[in-house]
Amino acid sequence: MGATRTEVARAALERLVVDVPDFPEPGVVFKDITPLLADHDGLTAVVAALAEAGRDGDGTPVVDKVVGMEARGFILAAPVALALGAGFVPVRKAGKLPREAHAVSYALEYAEATLELHRDAIAPGERVLLVDDVLATGGTVRATRELVAACGGTPVGVSVLMELGFLAGREVVGDLPVHSIAVI
Amino acid sequence: MGATRTEVARAALERLVVDVPDFPEPGVVFKDITPLLADHDGLTAVVAALAEAGRDGDGTPVVDKVVGMEARGFILAAPVALALGAGFVPVRKAGKLPREAHAVSYALEYAEATLELHRDAIAPGERVLLVDDVLATGGTVRATRELVAACGGTPVGVSVLMELGFLAGREVVGDLPVHSIAVI
Repeated sequence: MGATRTEVARAALERLVVDVPDFPEPGVVFKDITPLLADHDGLTAVVAALAEAGRDGDGTPVVDKVVGMEARGFILAAPVALALGAGFVPVRKAGKLPREAHAVSYALEYAEATLELHRDAIAPGERVLLVDDVLATGGTVRATRELVAACGGTPVGVSVLMELGFLAGREVVGDLPVHSIAVI
Repeated sequence: MGATRTEVARAALERLVVDVPDFPEPGVVFKDITPLLADHDGLTAVVAALAEAGRDGDGTPVVDKVVGMEARGFILAAPVALALGAGFVPVRKAGKLPREAHAVSYALEYAEATLELHRDAIAPGERVLLVDDVLATGGTVRATRELVAACGGTPVGVSVLMELGFLAGREVVGDLPVHSIAVI
């Protein structure tokens, strides 16, 4: 069942994700997921496959919260939360959350980024699935994992559309299970 | 049925949206929807109510695409698109979309903002529902309406959680039907 959903989603990815060369800078090939999101069947397929990481072997949901990382992670994490009977929690860039928040900074290729999570967004002991579009260097996922832990929550896995295998983000993420619909 | 869904969603809003004074600046009361999004039943209720604006009198979906405005609009528009059998399309801040895009600039209180939409995101003649969290001055909705029209699409309405009545955004939006779960 899980394998089948992931296979259907992978076929949708292969059909609908567009490679855009030299964006956002020369030499980088950007994976544009907007044609996938605009296709109702494609969107349905990838949401179902992403949610598999939040179910046990019998298909029963096992997470309390689904965290989406700003901004593309929001698009995927909210429907995944609905599918799993869970709540949605945003991890945002610095300064966007209005109440008291935990903050974690991490290095990007040429800069530093800070992500924030409301301190009361996750209750101690809650089980949390992380959802984003792409796992690249793993910095965003590692920072989010730290934020969830700072709230007392338990990250149970990360679910992404695509994993850029050559960047080895999976090693940065540590022992958190990574569910990727496609490794490219 | 529509009234009932909106009433259920309005009760969830009243219970779960938090007023945060002096954010993002002194004198402003920010409506924090994150506790609503984190509540599975609350999120379910508001998505169902927002989607009502994309159905005809019999409850049949009548839209091809649901547009969400960056960033909080993404969280709501993607599940609404899934509920309506439609695709999801992001309207993004300048420089985020990787391919050829229409752009519209508009005035904010103390600055100017630019929103963009991929030129091929909406096909000519497609019917489009706009979804965001708050209707304030109406500038974002008006710009998005122009972007949809530039693609040849037909905006059929805008659906928001909350309408700040004292800002009169509805007048700026023009003759586009506005569905607000709550007017405050």
